[in-house]
Amino acid sequence: MTVVVSHPLIPLIEAELRRWVGRGENLLELTFLDALFPSGKLLRPTLCVESARAVGGTAEAVLPFAAGIECLHVASLIHDDIVDQDPVRRGRASIAEQFGIAEALLAGDGLSMAGHAAMLSGGPADRVLAATRVVVDAMRHMCLAMMRETELRENLLCGVPAVLAVIRGKTAALISAACQAGALLGGATHAQVESVRRYGELVGQAFQICDDLLPYTVHDRAAGKSAVSDVANRQPTLPVLLAYEAAGEADRQRLVTIFGDDVDPVTAHRDVLDIVTHTGAVTEAARQARTNIDDAHAELDALPAPGRLAELAASVVARHP
Amino acid sequence: MTVVVSHPLIPLIEAELRRWVGRGENLLELTFLDALFPSGKLLRPTLCVESARAVGGTAEAVLPFAAGIECLHVASLIHDDIVDQDPVRRGRASIAEQFGIAEALLAGDGLSMAGHAAMLSGGPADRVLAATRVVVDAMRHMCLAMMRETELRENLLCGVPAVLAVIRGKTAALISAACQAGALLGGATHAQVESVRRYGELVGQAFQICDDLLPYTVHDRAAGKSAVSDVANRQPTLPVLLAYEAAGEADRQRLVTIFGDDVDPVTAHRDVLDIVTHTGAVTEAARQARTNIDDAHAELDALPAPGRLAELAASVVARHP
Repeated sequence: MTVVVSHPLIPLIEAELRRWVGRGENLLELTFLDALFPSGKLLRPTLCVESARAVGGTAEAVLPFAAGIECLHVASLIHDDIVDQDPVRRGRASIAEQFGIAEALLAGDGLSMAGHAAMLSGGPADRVLAATRVVVDAMRHMCLAMMRETELRENLLCGVPAVLAVIRGKTAALISAACQAGALLGGATHAQVESVRRYGELVGQAFQICDDLLPYTVHDRAAGKSAVSDVANRQPTLPVLLAYEAAGEADRQRLVTIFGDDVDPVTAHRDVLDIVTHTGAVTEAARQARTNIDDAHAELDALPAPGRLAELAASVVARHP
Repeated sequence: MTVVVSHPLIPLIEAELRRWVGRGENLLELTFLDALFPSGKLLRPTLCVESARAVGGTAEAVLPFAAGIECLHVASLIHDDIVDQDPVRRGRASIAEQFGIAEALLAGDGLSMAGHAAMLSGGPADRVLAATRVVVDAMRHMCLAMMRETELRENLLCGVPAVLAVIRGKTAALISAACQAGALLGGATHAQVESVRRYGELVGQAFQICDDLLPYTVHDRAAGKSAVSDVANRQPTLPVLLAYEAAGEADRQRLVTIFGDDVDPVTAHRDVLDIVTHTGAVTEAARQARTNIDDAHAELDALPAPGRLAELAASVVARHP
C-alpha cells in the first residue's frame, strides 16, 4: 500500500518537523531524529493541511499543528513497538531495538511533548484550543484501544465488532482528528468539521484494514515491518476473524491451535496466509476498506474546496485487490 | 519528609481528579485509579491553586488545570518506575509490577492524555493556552532530564552541576510550571508570574534534594520506595557526589567500587549510608535545600496574597536536620 502524498507539502512538513525536535544534540534528540527521518507517508499532517485548505484556510497557518500531530503519531509508534516487542519499524530497527526499552519509552514521551509544543504554538487561541482538544481526545482513544488490543491477544472469539472498535480507536481516531483539527484551524463551519470528521474516520478505518492485510498481500520487505508480527503476537486482526467466521471445522481448529499454542511463527504465518486467502477473508476485508473509501468520498461534497482529499483517500486502498 | 498540604483543598482536588480519569470500567481506567489513589501529597496541584489565589484568582477556576498537572506528574512516575525497574511506589507495588510493562507504558500515556484534556477544558482560551505551553515545556525538560539521568548511571565523576541540572529538569521544572500556570490562570502580571516561577523552581529543587536524602535519613517504609533503589541502579545523587568530593582516598575507592561493580545492594547501601553521613554530605545537602527554601520565601514579597505558599515551601524541608 502506497499513499501518494501531496508532493509539494512533504518538504514543508519535514522542515517544520525539524524546527520542533532539535538537531540531535543529545540522546533524546537523536532518538527523535531517528524515529522521524527518513519520514513515513506523512498521511496525518498532509490530511491536516489539506483539510484546512478544503475549508478556505492556508497551509502556512496550520503547518506547526500538522507537524505536531506527526510527532504524536510517531511517538505512539515508538511505544507500540515496545508493547508489541517489534524489532522492526519502517524497514529499520525500532527505537526500542536500537536504544533500549527505557530510552524508547522516554523518546516517545519526549516526542509527544515536542508535538504538543508545536500544536500549541500558533493562534488564534480559541481555534488552537479547540483543535488541540480534538487531538488529545483522539490520543486517549488510542491508548484505550491499544490496551484493549493487548487484552484481545489469543482471543479468536472476540468477534469482528471488537476488532473494528480497536481499529477505530488505534488508527481512525487520530487520522480523523488530524482532519478535524485542520478544518477547525482553517475556520470551518460546524457542518464542515463534521464532514471531515466522518471522512477522516472512514479513511482511517480503511487505512488500518489495509495495514492489517499487508502480511497477506505484499512481500515482507515492502511491509516495512515483520510480516509475522501479528501472528507471532497472537493478535487477531480483521482478516483472521473474517476467515474464522467463514472457515470450515478443520481450518478453525488450525487457527485455534496457532493462536493458542506455541507454534513456530513462520509456519503459523504460512498456514494463516493459506486460510485467509482460500476462505475469501482477504478479498472481503479489502472490499470493506473500499466501501469505507467510497463513503469517505461522499462526505467531501459538503466542502467548498476538497482539493486533494479525494486523491488521498483513494491512495489508501490503491494497491489492494 | 512530610508536606503539610492545604487541607481544605485535598478533597476538592481528589474529586476533580476522579472527574477526569473514569470509574475503573476498563483496564486502562483501573490503572489510572490505582496510580492516583490513595493520593500522594498533591503538592503540584496544591501549589497551582495557591499560586492562582496568591494573585487574586479563585480555586474553582483553576481546579481542572491543577488536577491535569497531577495526572501528568503521576503518569511520569508510572514511566519512571519502568525506567528504574522499581517494584515499589508510595509503599505499594508499582503499576509496572502489578500490571506488566506494556500495560504500565499505556497507563502512563493514557493518564497523560487525561491530564491534557483536563488542562485544556477551561477558559479563557488565551490564559489556558499560555498555562498549557508552560506545562508542556516543563514536561519536555523532564524527559530530557530523565534521559540524561540514565546516561549518568555509574558515573561518579559527572559532578554536582550535572546532578543539579537533572534535579531542575526532572522535578523543579514541573513544580515551577504548576506555580506559573496557576498564576497565569489567575490573571497575574508578568512580574508576578516570574516570581512564582522562581519560587517554584527553588521549592522543586529543595524537594528533590530532600527526596534524594530519604534513603539516608528515614526508615525504608516511610520513604515509600525502596531505600536501596538509587544505589541498586548505581544512580549518583547529590549526597553521593558531595560525599565523593569531601571523601578521603579509601572512601572514594569504596564508592567507585559500589557504583562500578556488582556489589550486593544491601551491603552497598549500608556502606554509602556510612560514607554520606561521616563526610557531612547529608548535612550539606540538607543545608542547600534549606537555602533554596529561604530564597523561595523571598520571592513571595512580590505577590499580593501569598497565603499558604510560605507554609508549603517550609513543609518541604520540615523533617530534615
